[in-house]
Amino acid sequence: MSTIQETIHQMGRQARAAAYQLAHLSSDEKNTILRAMAVAIRERAPEILAANALDLSAGREKGLSAAMLDRLLLDEKRIEAMAAGVEQVATLPDPVGQVLDAWERPNGLRIEQIRVPIGTIGIIYESRPNVTADAAVLCFKTGNATILRGGSEAIHSNVAIAAALAEAGASDHAIQLIPFTDRESVAVLAGMDQWLDLIIPRGGKGLIETVVSLARMPVIKHYDGICHLFADAAAAQEMAVALTVNSKTHKVGVCNALETLLVHQEIAAEFLPKVAADLRAKNVELRGCERTLAILPDAIPATEEDWGTEYLDLILSIKIVDSLTDAVSHINQYGSHHTDVIVTADEQQAERFLRSVDSACVFHNVSTRFADGGEFGFGAEIGISTDKLHARGPMGLRELTSYQYRVRGTGQVKS
Amino acid sequence: MSTIQETIHQMGRQARAAAYQLAHLSSDEKNTILRAMAVAIRERAPEILAANALDLSAGREKGLSAAMLDRLLLDEKRIEAMAAGVEQVATLPDPVGQVLDAWERPNGLRIEQIRVPIGTIGIIYESRPNVTADAAVLCFKTGNATILRGGSEAIHSNVAIAAALAEAGASDHAIQLIPFTDRESVAVLAGMDQWLDLIIPRGGKGLIETVVSLARMPVIKHYDGICHLFADAAAAQEMAVALTVNSKTHKVGVCNALETLLVHQEIAAEFLPKVAADLRAKNVELRGCERTLAILPDAIPATEEDWGTEYLDLILSIKIVDSLTDAVSHINQYGSHHTDVIVTADEQQAERFLRSVDSACVFHNVSTRFADGGEFGFGAEIGISTDKLHARGPMGLRELTSYQYRVRGTGQVKS
Repeated sequence: MSTIQETIHQMGRQARAAAYQLAHLSSDEKNTILRAMAVAIRERAPEILAANALDLSAGREKGLSAAMLDRLLLDEKRIEAMAAGVEQVATLPDPVGQVLDAWERPNGLRIEQIRVPIGTIGIIYESRPNVTADAAVLCFKTGNATILRGGSEAIHSNVAIAAALAEAGASDHAIQLIPFTDRESVAVLAGMDQWLDLIIPRGGKGLIETVVSLARMPVIKHYDGICHLFADAAAAQEMAVALTVNSKTHKVGVCNALETLLVHQEIAAEFLPKVAADLRAKNVELRGCERTLAILPDAIPATEEDWGTEYLDLILSIKIVDSLTDAVSHINQYGSHHTDVIVTADEQQAERFLRSVDSACVFHNVSTRFADGGEFGFGAEIGISTDKLHARGPMGLRELTSYQYRVRGTGQVKS
Repeated sequence: MSTIQETIHQMGRQARAAAYQLAHLSSDEKNTILRAMAVAIRERAPEILAANALDLSAGREKGLSAAMLDRLLLDEKRIEAMAAGVEQVATLPDPVGQVLDAWERPNGLRIEQIRVPIGTIGIIYESRPNVTADAAVLCFKTGNATILRGGSEAIHSNVAIAAALAEAGASDHAIQLIPFTDRESVAVLAGMDQWLDLIIPRGGKGLIETVVSLARMPVIKHYDGICHLFADAAAAQEMAVALTVNSKTHKVGVCNALETLLVHQEIAAEFLPKVAADLRAKNVELRGCERTLAILPDAIPATEEDWGTEYLDLILSIKIVDSLTDAVSHINQYGSHHTDVIVTADEQQAERFLRSVDSACVFHNVSTRFADGGEFGFGAEIGISTDKLHARGPMGLRELTSYQYRVRGTGQVKS
């Protein structure tokens, strides 16, 4: 075993032991520790800022882009937001212990299905140092031990933040940060399914692809957010324009931004010039199918590749479709099963769309931007999942738990 | 691409298309098809038996053991049981479409969390040909398309059964059987996460280990059933004897059979001779820790290896522990997180045990043999999962579904 292997496996053993302790803490005990973590983050702000300055200067030397440096940057305001976020998690209801289902069998067995922590969770993430606190405290609130593996750019900041969290008196090893940032540490973490119950990668497609290939335990993730809005023949056109513009331009670099607009052929000639005018006023580049170009001659011709692209930019692909069925087929073929919207005044068409689109979130007359744990009322979000097992869509505290069957009897033997 | 790769990827594409069709069938439509499948199995019994005869004679030539040949064997009675099983699945309630949760947000968004099919499921299994029908119809009932990959020993029987199911008019490609039985076909299936949402391996530890290593999609499984019974200081000793004997000897070759008995030191001197007498009357070999040997001098000394062994045989390991805490530690360290039992008249001790043991099923005063979908009242069981995500413990129809968020609004845009 290499040193990296030995260290990370040792952290795994410790995380497992810590998880068994955390499972016994009451909600009040966990909340008290969370508030202490917030205090520790505030008190250690000078150390965290000093560590962050090291990361920033290394980043500048490495020639990181301005956007990358901004993602890395911590200041007093961002540290206060981090601490306030931890306090807010303390105020949320604790899903652990909830009785999901309960029934009695004819032989007198009483069976309960109970929410329990998942156990140990590995978080692999890239440059944003605030993920260290955000992810760790959501896992802590739900009684899970975490092993964090952040990117090399933020290593000093991450170490300082993790030290603040650990100081706050969480059980030993409830929150651990891997001190290595090389590739081997990801491979070791993803391989040790005896110590880790789940991995959540947060970052680009390349990182997620690597983790999925290596992981022996379940991975909760999404690759892309290729979100669609379908303006149906029966769409209220003003609403369709407003939802398209909001979905595309409210924030462009996020997974729940709109990437492709599908328009029913019956309304295309009237609707497309209206929506194009508003989109162009917001500097959105339009890429259209052939029939779209006939109505919007200034649009750029879309290629096959456009339909499968998450632009994360002020670009929108547009396609005219003959029917709701064609819209659904396009979405199921080219989409990423994240969030897709129909705009229509026809309730039956809406129901058909909601039932036929194979995505985590299917919306009727709503902006794609509402695919979000906060907007769903979860109070916090650990991520958005396009997986179908266990967690799908915005994931709050509940999705950080599993369940256990507790059965009570009076000596039943099987005959 | 090899021929095997091409064929299996083509099956994957077809399964995905079939899954979108299945998702639209009503429960009545699915039940009608299921009943037609049962009819087809009965009508095609002669072909199925002829195919099975080919497998049996090949098995004899290969020198398969009598137990293996029995697992492979189909006769009129077993075919009737298979058909009756399919009919029984038609009578079960359909979980698809169930509203799991529903709420309204302050901005008027109405959010529903709805059960939907998982989509496409790969089933990899070994010699029992009845799995072909059992697994496929449970998946079909829940609107999932299946790709089956059975073992080489049963290939003729599997092909004949799958043909009967397909004939019954399920959507094209709702149930497909891979015609290859080599290792490459497992690797190809496990690698194609673009077409497959879930893999369920059913078979020995080696098979499951291979699938877990190769799979890019979630795997639902259990490796071992190292089940424990803890006879607490406050146990009703007669009940503890009866539950131990039933858990160990009712059926030995199954995952919910007892493998290790833990006894509180306060009752060991009185309890062990009683339980040993009843176990020996059933020809159970006893392997004890040092303190057990002092009370049962005829027992065989247990080694460290015994504590982690699933005997699947008339062998029981026995350990005396000082406390409930020690029992829980032993179970969490050596167990397989499947099913563990406490026998005690002390309710508080029982609660402590149920909350502390990290297993899918934790029982109080119940035989381990009740860890079973039928005994839980699920009507059918696709397997037992020791995973913590999504499905844990006995898995019925509900565990073959996922959920989707359906959100209805009135034009909400994000500001």
